[in-house]
Amino acid sequence: MSPPLRVGVAGLGTVGAGVLTLLAANADVVAARAGRPIVVSAVSARDRNRDRGVSLAGLRWHDDPVALAADPNVDVVVELIGGADGPARALVEAALAAGRPVVTANKAMLAVHGAELARAAEAAGVALAFEAAVAGGIPVIKAVREGLAGNRISRISGILNGTCNYILTRMRAEGRDFAEILGDAQRLGYAEADPSFDIDGIDAAHKLAILAALAFGRPVAFGAVHVEGIRGISARDIAFAGELGYRIKLLGLAHATPDGISARVYPALLAEDAPLARVDGVYNAVVTEGDFVGRLMLEGRGAGAGPTASAVVADLIDLARGRATPVWGAAAGALSDAPSVPIAAHVGCYYLRLMVVDRPGVIADVAAVLRDHGVSLESMLQRGRAPGETVAVVLVTHETRESAMRGALDRIAALDAVLEPPTMLRIEAG
Amino acid sequence: MSPPLRVGVAGLGTVGAGVLTLLAANADVVAARAGRPIVVSAVSARDRNRDRGVSLAGLRWHDDPVALAADPNVDVVVELIGGADGPARALVEAALAAGRPVVTANKAMLAVHGAELARAAEAAGVALAFEAAVAGGIPVIKAVREGLAGNRISRISGILNGTCNYILTRMRAEGRDFAEILGDAQRLGYAEADPSFDIDGIDAAHKLAILAALAFGRPVAFGAVHVEGIRGISARDIAFAGELGYRIKLLGLAHATPDGISARVYPALLAEDAPLARVDGVYNAVVTEGDFVGRLMLEGRGAGAGPTASAVVADLIDLARGRATPVWGAAAGALSDAPSVPIAAHVGCYYLRLMVVDRPGVIADVAAVLRDHGVSLESMLQRGRAPGETVAVVLVTHETRESAMRGALDRIAALDAVLEPPTMLRIEAG
Repeated sequence: MSPPLRVGVAGLGTVGAGVLTLLAANADVVAARAGRPIVVSAVSARDRNRDRGVSLAGLRWHDDPVALAADPNVDVVVELIGGADGPARALVEAALAAGRPVVTANKAMLAVHGAELARAAEAAGVALAFEAAVAGGIPVIKAVREGLAGNRISRISGILNGTCNYILTRMRAEGRDFAEILGDAQRLGYAEADPSFDIDGIDAAHKLAILAALAFGRPVAFGAVHVEGIRGISARDIAFAGELGYRIKLLGLAHATPDGISARVYPALLAEDAPLARVDGVYNAVVTEGDFVGRLMLEGRGAGAGPTASAVVADLIDLARGRATPVWGAAAGALSDAPSVPIAAHVGCYYLRLMVVDRPGVIADVAAVLRDHGVSLESMLQRGRAPGETVAVVLVTHETRESAMRGALDRIAALDAVLEPPTMLRIEAG
Repeated sequence: MSPPLRVGVAGLGTVGAGVLTLLAANADVVAARAGRPIVVSAVSARDRNRDRGVSLAGLRWHDDPVALAADPNVDVVVELIGGADGPARALVEAALAAGRPVVTANKAMLAVHGAELARAAEAAGVALAFEAAVAGGIPVIKAVREGLAGNRISRISGILNGTCNYILTRMRAEGRDFAEILGDAQRLGYAEADPSFDIDGIDAAHKLAILAALAFGRPVAFGAVHVEGIRGISARDIAFAGELGYRIKLLGLAHATPDGISARVYPALLAEDAPLARVDGVYNAVVTEGDFVGRLMLEGRGAGAGPTASAVVADLIDLARGRATPVWGAAAGALSDAPSVPIAAHVGCYYLRLMVVDRPGVIADVAAVLRDHGVSLESMLQRGRAPGETVAVVLVTHETRESAMRGALDRIAALDAVLEPPTMLRIEAG
């Protein structure tokens, strides 16, 4: 058997400890599949004395993670610090510059600096692997970048944030509102103390930017992803959507249009029998559509120490076996330069909920505005009657352009009888 | 860009023509992802003059497929002839012996001769790739062998035969019997003129044998798979199962027990909310359970020219990039020698349907036999009363050992009041 692959791990939080645990617990199967042992030789973290439930005996300790890049006992750097910049980026850049391959779970860094880091990896001729950056344990990077490599992919979509999916699943099951369930999720450890990164859709957008780059063979373009989170979703909208045969999910969606790539993250209505509609709780899932393979769906655990460690170690085994793939699926020079399409050009069906004064003529006014903007209605739903009081009215449109929809919404919001900012959600096929 | 990878394709049926079509239609994306063009240089098939809808202009034609192994213009042999033996096996053996890598979609050959072929590939130091052999376009070989390589897998199961799933899906939707739907499926091209390979479970068993070898890291052992097909499934059983909250699916299942690996293919009852229960029509799906990754499910098109070509080309791209993995996930010397467990040792819950004479004492007799064999009942269902006539009685057992169940069944079948051979189906978690 070949000499061991020696790994330097930067960041010993939940995932870092998980990687050490996996490599110890499954050393035999890992060595068989890698063709050589994979051993941790050095680590770096902020607090040398914290108990992480794993033994660090015999490992070199670096207070400065960047020092791992130069440690002669490290063949591969595993970056699990997180954050798009700061020490994570400094370490990865230093490692690549030193000709050391890197394995990372850092979606923010990949999404924001991935094009540049890919060029650095390509120039150095070393691997920059990141299976753990998207959808945790689901081997979706490998599936899209290698397994579907013969296909022109027309569409990729997914449930990419377990926190949001957990919150929306519970809101629906219990009929409770966002703030209540978020509080519960925080107490139970399913949401962070500062949850904005997850619930505002940023985390999902990082992952979607990565998936879209792989699916469409172009450099990652995080700035081109339109992002909306789930703070505005109410139990009322989930209930109305249910009456109409839909579930509300935070989706990442990217598809190829004649004008370029459309990529966006937002809560959307999905028909109840769409594959992604059934993915509940903390599970993640990704659906792709390729010209030869057709529809493929992958579903599994999107976060947590075990699933993320599984993905990190899969990358390490690839490295140990000498299996390498360009960061974005092709060399920088062979990537597509397809432009990004702005959300204003999006075409689809929309769900609108208005809170209006229940009096004659209101619906006629709303309908007239929609007509003036070329938006045609598929259905209208009003529950209960309360003359002179506030009632909810739900409208579902036929396919329309987002710019037209927004124009209409601005005018609808300005109507006297419309009492709150309207809620607008897109309807997606999944 | 590096020189092209030159491919010799043996077998120009639906899948062979699909591979030629894909490589022509997606030549640009394939070259970008492979780092070099992938071109077909030579072909072999039985009939030189048949119109296959693809151009063979400029390709060398070999009447004898084995000649592809020696063609100096062929870098990789793609075997799409099929059949465990005969020309397919002769070609693969000749190619490996000549130091040529092989890509094949041949599940029968892999399942029956895969241990030996893996040794030949290892001795020659060349790849034997077979993503297309299992579940068509779903990159399940790559997912299990590489993506989950850090895990100890405890269980793998799947819907592995689209013909059977199509038939069972339609039987349930239409309440019609097996023979009728099979006839329809044959007319529509979803079942072969001689359907026995599919409906008797052999095809699914080939695929399960391959998946089990990868999941548990041991040489493939087709002979150890217990196989039952779907000929005995009636509309009546599907309806009874539905009343009890189950669907009937042809499943391939393998799991690790303390005594070794249990691998079997049979129609089984799955709870309606189990992930595999919702996979309908010609879709295939595979569920794995790994110690770190947890549950992962992959679902997609399991057959057809496009999906199968997608898998073949993914293997070719791996080869073009120099990505290689031992056939069974580890070198022959590093594989496990875990024994196989016979079906008699299976422990689970069972569904029994008996056709009995409706007279006092019959149920008591049946219950006494079950008690004598240590089989305890969870529920009993009888629909309708017809004194002196034949009625169906459905029994669901608690967990019991298959050997006990079979002993009891032999005695039940011999009871005077039991008029047809009993139907026994296992209940699985999915």
